[in-house]
Amino acid sequence: MYHEINPKHYGIAIEREETLFKDKSQFQDVEIFKSKGMGNVLTLDGLMMTTEADEFFYHEMIAHIPLIAHKNPQTVLVIGGGDGGTVREVLKHKSVKSVDMCEIDGMVIEASKKFLPTISCKLEDEKVKVYVEDAIEFIKDKKNCYDVVLIDSTDPMGPGEGLFTEEFYTNVKNSLREGGIVVPQSESPFVNVNEMRKMYILLKKVFKNVAPYCGPIPTYPGGYWSWAFCSDDVDVPHCHKKVDKERADEIAPLCKIYNARMQTAVFDVPNFVKEIVAGE
Amino acid sequence: MYHEINPKHYGIAIEREETLFKDKSQFQDVEIFKSKGMGNVLTLDGLMMTTEADEFFYHEMIAHIPLIAHKNPQTVLVIGGGDGGTVREVLKHKSVKSVDMCEIDGMVIEASKKFLPTISCKLEDEKVKVYVEDAIEFIKDKKNCYDVVLIDSTDPMGPGEGLFTEEFYTNVKNSLREGGIVVPQSESPFVNVNEMRKMYILLKKVFKNVAPYCGPIPTYPGGYWSWAFCSDDVDVPHCHKKVDKERADEIAPLCKIYNARMQTAVFDVPNFVKEIVAGE
Repeated sequence: MYHEINPKHYGIAIEREETLFKDKSQFQDVEIFKSKGMGNVLTLDGLMMTTEADEFFYHEMIAHIPLIAHKNPQTVLVIGGGDGGTVREVLKHKSVKSVDMCEIDGMVIEASKKFLPTISCKLEDEKVKVYVEDAIEFIKDKKNCYDVVLIDSTDPMGPGEGLFTEEFYTNVKNSLREGGIVVPQSESPFVNVNEMRKMYILLKKVFKNVAPYCGPIPTYPGGYWSWAFCSDDVDVPHCHKKVDKERADEIAPLCKIYNARMQTAVFDVPNFVKEIVAGE
Repeated sequence: MYHEINPKHYGIAIEREETLFKDKSQFQDVEIFKSKGMGNVLTLDGLMMTTEADEFFYHEMIAHIPLIAHKNPQTVLVIGGGDGGTVREVLKHKSVKSVDMCEIDGMVIEASKKFLPTISCKLEDEKVKVYVEDAIEFIKDKKNCYDVVLIDSTDPMGPGEGLFTEEFYTNVKNSLREGGIVVPQSESPFVNVNEMRKMYILLKKVFKNVAPYCGPIPTYPGGYWSWAFCSDDVDVPHCHKKVDKERADEIAPLCKIYNARMQTAVFDVPNFVKEIVAGE
């Protein structure tokens, strides 16, 4: 039985069948195991990253909300996301001409290509360029080139720590074209309250509009996750009438979760989430 | 470590500290244990019912959505719900004059009063009448007397089975006054797909308007739960303008989740939930 116990002293248990891949990269322990009921499961340093059975909850949410909120997303950067799930969702948008993915750990990409084929399936697409580099360095000289940047990182405690700093967010912002949007995953509002609070304080220093949106992820801590919608130019879509329904309706049939109504509903968050992100 | 493993061969694990109550009632095994990080935890036949740390997710959702959707809820029936959490939330509404609670198992009520005081705290309120009876019998002669009926039951597999039949739903419907609303909990759309599908087929035979609404519950199977909004007279609130914002804003400060925006957002459900409830 695989366990991930979170700081609230509870967590998930998954029945394992067999280990498919297990190695130590320069950065972390990488493992993929076959589970009894949730498909193949990727863990990094023993922490749950994704399962074939529930990965769509995360990948649809991080990608489609900002891409539909953007008027005409053509160039997208995915930071992290080595399993390929976020890239797969981004490519569902016809307007997208190129996707750069910057993942520090090549072992995650290679293991995912082999053992998570339904997730990594678009990494070889001709629109995709994969950079096996540290995003902290990668982003420094990128100016005015991306419409949407998705930060599909691990937690702020560990190898992903440098992706949760004011300097990094500022560099990401400078990589945006006019009308650009950035969405980092922003942790569990039920389990990672302090990490989430710190993160929003930083994001609000850098971006004019910052708003959390939330959704369920069965195998993540708390079963409930958040993402931060960040932009200087684009307002949070709070009104159905302002949603580009035509584009949303094109994407919805390709999704298990996403539809036009969710484009606004996910921003209607519980009171306790509002309190966390209210800041200092 | 307490485990609840669901049919998808994964589930939750909770670090136990000590058993506070453990007995066998006429109907089921009743246990309350102290956990390390989630407060006291109630299980029935070993299945997770509620924890002090996350009970608000369930109880706010089952109560406030129908009570705000109803024009002027005065008389409410809670079926099941022996821990008292649903009754506590119902009593936050000023218009409510009386709450009947019909719970089959007196042991659940007594154990909750002793070991879950923050949940059961309103069971002695003067507006509340507790009936330790089988709801299947209790409901038969109730005609035209409730504004809202909340079915806060266990799963359809076990002692709660009889609460998931066309006959029972018909009797519940006949207990409603004009403009009445019924909300049963309707299982996990990620884990209990078949049970949920069957349930909505039956509900749609009985009620004119039936719509699922969803929300996170960290310790329930899939971390994600559903409830069925059922009424012959009241439409599902799909538009912010139709929400009684004044009453919703009165309730919100008393809640950790509920606010006026959620009154509509919870009905904007993922595509896979729509497919489950689309029925035959």
